[in-house]
Amino acid sequence: MLLSRLLRLSRHDRSSVSGCRWLLSQRHNCFLLPISPKPFGDSALKVFGCRETYTWCLPTFYADRTNIHHQSSSMVEDDQLDPFSLVADELSHIANRLRAMAVAEVPKLTSAAEYFFKMGVEGKRFRPTVLLLLATALNVRLPQPTSVSKGAEAELRSRQQSIAEITEMYHVASLLHDDILDDADTRRGIGSLNFVMGNKVAVFAGDFLLSRACVALASLQNTEVVSLMSTAIKDLVTGEIKQMTSTADQRYSMDYYMQKTYYKTASLISHSCKSIALLADHTAEVALLASEYGKNLGLAFQVIDDVLDFTGTSPSLGKGSLSDIRHGIITAPILYAMEEFPQLRAVLDQGLDKPENIEIALEYVRKSCGIQRARELAAKHADLAVSAINSLPETEDGEVRKSRRALVDLTQIVLTRNK
Amino acid sequence: MLLSRLLRLSRHDRSSVSGCRWLLSQRHNCFLLPISPKPFGDSALKVFGCRETYTWCLPTFYADRTNIHHQSSSMVEDDQLDPFSLVADELSHIANRLRAMAVAEVPKLTSAAEYFFKMGVEGKRFRPTVLLLLATALNVRLPQPTSVSKGAEAELRSRQQSIAEITEMYHVASLLHDDILDDADTRRGIGSLNFVMGNKVAVFAGDFLLSRACVALASLQNTEVVSLMSTAIKDLVTGEIKQMTSTADQRYSMDYYMQKTYYKTASLISHSCKSIALLADHTAEVALLASEYGKNLGLAFQVIDDVLDFTGTSPSLGKGSLSDIRHGIITAPILYAMEEFPQLRAVLDQGLDKPENIEIALEYVRKSCGIQRARELAAKHADLAVSAINSLPETEDGEVRKSRRALVDLTQIVLTRNK
Repeated sequence: MLLSRLLRLSRHDRSSVSGCRWLLSQRHNCFLLPISPKPFGDSALKVFGCRETYTWCLPTFYADRTNIHHQSSSMVEDDQLDPFSLVADELSHIANRLRAMAVAEVPKLTSAAEYFFKMGVEGKRFRPTVLLLLATALNVRLPQPTSVSKGAEAELRSRQQSIAEITEMYHVASLLHDDILDDADTRRGIGSLNFVMGNKVAVFAGDFLLSRACVALASLQNTEVVSLMSTAIKDLVTGEIKQMTSTADQRYSMDYYMQKTYYKTASLISHSCKSIALLADHTAEVALLASEYGKNLGLAFQVIDDVLDFTGTSPSLGKGSLSDIRHGIITAPILYAMEEFPQLRAVLDQGLDKPENIEIALEYVRKSCGIQRARELAAKHADLAVSAINSLPETEDGEVRKSRRALVDLTQIVLTRNK
Repeated sequence: MLLSRLLRLSRHDRSSVSGCRWLLSQRHNCFLLPISPKPFGDSALKVFGCRETYTWCLPTFYADRTNIHHQSSSMVEDDQLDPFSLVADELSHIANRLRAMAVAEVPKLTSAAEYFFKMGVEGKRFRPTVLLLLATALNVRLPQPTSVSKGAEAELRSRQQSIAEITEMYHVASLLHDDILDDADTRRGIGSLNFVMGNKVAVFAGDFLLSRACVALASLQNTEVVSLMSTAIKDLVTGEIKQMTSTADQRYSMDYYMQKTYYKTASLISHSCKSIALLADHTAEVALLASEYGKNLGLAFQVIDDVLDFTGTSPSLGKGSLSDIRHGIITAPILYAMEEFPQLRAVLDQGLDKPENIEIALEYVRKSCGIQRARELAAKHADLAVSAINSLPETEDGEVRKSRRALVDLTQIVLTRNK
C-alpha cells in the first residue's frame, strides 16, 4: 500500500508547468528539466492550462528526501509505515482524554468535540500524529533498562502526549471561533435563552478548550514550554486577525500571505514540535530542527489547503468550496495568477462579493499557473521539513528511524491529499 | 468627603426588612434588632414592601470593620483615602500599556479597548485598583534601603502590575465574548468580508486579549501563578457555560447561583489577589487571606450587579435594564422571592420570553424581600472580605495601613454603587 503511495508521491515531485518556466527559475532558483509531455494526461493539462511538462526540484532537499526514503526502506516493511497506524493506540488514548475533558463538564460541548473526528487528514488527527511520531523520532538516547528510568520515560511520554492534547485543543478552539457567524448589522430584540445557544455556545466552548489547554500547560511546570505554547496561541489569533483586517496592498502581497499563513497554521505546529523536544531536554539544535520541521510542514499543509479550496476533491479548478475567494480572502493561487495577469487586480479591487467577479477571477487562475505554482510552493516547504528530519543526529534504533520515515511520509501525504 | 461616604455606608449595615425576620434569622444566623421605623423614608418602604426596619449584622465581621475604620482614621486624612486616587498614577500607566498592546497590533481592537474606560466602578478600573492596593497592603517586610533591594522592589511591583494587566485583559476578553450575538438559526449565504466584521472581530479580539494575557503570564515564569491564573480563566468560562446550559432545577437553586457567581466573577479576582501575594513570596496564610478577600469582594460585586439589573440607578424595582430576567437568567432577588412565593416557579417554568410573565415575576419580587435579602447577601460577603484584611499581619507602616483601609472602603463602594 505504501509503495503505491510513494509512487504517487514521486509523481508530485514533477511539475506540470507551461508558460511558467521563467517564473519558476526566477523565483525558486531551481532546475527545470523537460521529462514528459503529458504526465497527468490531457485533463490535467486542461486544468493547469499547461502545454509542456518539467520536473523541478530544490537539489539539496530532493537528495535528502530520496536518501531518507532509501535509508528507511531497508529497515522496515513498507506496510508497517502508515504514519497514523504507528501511533494509533496513543491517538485513541488522546482522543478519549480530549472527549472526556470536553464532554464531562458541559453537555453542549459534545457537538463541539465532533470536530476531533472531522478534522485532520483522512479523518485522522494530524497534529497529534506529528507530535507523537516526533517524540519517538527524537529519542536518540541510550536505552535505560532500570524500572526507574522506565518510569521516567513513561512520565516524559505522558507530558509529550499532553502537548499533543493541548495542541489539538488550541486547534479545535480556533475552528469553533472561526465558525462564528455575524449578526452585528441585524441586531434583533432580546431572544429567549434557547435562541441564544448557537454562536455563544461556540464562543464559550472554544474559550473552554483554550482555558483547559492553559491549565494543562501550566501543569507541565516548564516555563519555556508555557511561553512557547502561549506564543503559538497568540500567533494563531494574530493570523486570523491579520486575515480579517488587512489592507488591499497587504492582501495582494505574497510576503503578507506567507506571514499570515505562518501565524494561522504553522506557528502552532512549529511551537508544539519544539515543545516536544524541550520536554525531553534535547539540545537547542535538535529543538530548532523540530521547530523547522513543524513550521515547514504547517506551511505546506496550509498552502495545499488553499489550493484545495479551488480544486476540491477533483483536480478541476472551481470544484472546491471557493470559500476563501467568496470571503475576499486572497491565497497563493490568486497571488500567482496576479503575477502573470496584473489586470486581475482591478477585478479584485471591485470586490469579490459579486459572483461575476469571482467567475472572472477564476478564469484568470484557470489560464495561469497559479494552482501549479502554489503546489510547488507547498512542495518546497515539504522538502525543507524533510531536510530538518534528515539533519537529526544519526541513530540505528529501528523505532526511531521508523518514526522519522513516517514524518517524511507525512510531508508527502500533506502534498497529495485531496481533502 | 470620605466621612460622608462612611456615614452612608453605615446606613447600609442596617436593613430595611419587613415580613422577612424569620427568613433572615433562619438563613443568616444573625441578629435582628429594631432600630428605626423608616430609615429610607416611605418610598424605600414602598420599593422593598417593608413596614419595619431592623439592623442585622454578623457580629465578628461588623466588629472587624468598625475596628479597621477606627484604626485607619487615626492614621490618615479622610480625603486622602479615595481608593482609586491612591493608585491613580499606576492605573494610568497600566491603562496606557493595555491600550498600546491592544491597539498596536490590530486597528479594530481600538473599539474593543474602549471597554477599559467603560467598565469598573464609576468609570475606574476596579480590578487593577484592588490588585495594586493589595500589593501595597501586603507589604509588611522591613524597609531595605540599598539600591539593589530597591531594584528588586521595583521589579516585584512591575510583576504585580502585570497581574493587574492580565486580570483586566481576561475580564475585557470575557466581556467581548459575552457580547457575541447569535445567528445560528438564521444562517445566511456567505456575506462580504465587511459584513463579517462584527461578531468575528469581537471573538478574535477577545481571543487576542486572552492570548496576550497568556504570553504575559508565561513571562512571569512562576508556575504556581501560571496555574492559578489559568484556573481563573477556566472558571470564568465555566461560569458562563454553567449559566447558559443549566437545567431548571439548577437555575432555581441558590447553591448553583452562588457557585456560578463564584466561577463567573469571584474566581478571577480571588486568584489574581492570591497571585499578588505569591509573587511577593508571602506565606500560605497571607496568600489565603488575599484570596479570601478577592473571593468575597467578587461575590459581593456580582450579587449587587444582579440587584442593579432590577433597580438600575434609581432605587425603584424594574428601573434596571432587566437584562438577566429577559434572558431567563435567575439571580438572587428572584431566588429569594421564590422562597417567599413558591408559586413564582410556575411563572418561571412558563418561560420569561413572554413579556407578561416578566411583569408577573417582577410583581412577586416587588412584594417580596428579594432585593433586600440579595443586598444583605452581598453585605455578608463584603464583611468576610473586610475580615480577611483585618486578619493580615499587623503593621505600623502608614502606606500599608492606608492601602488596607482603601481595600475595606472598596467593599463598601461595591455595596453602595448604583451603576
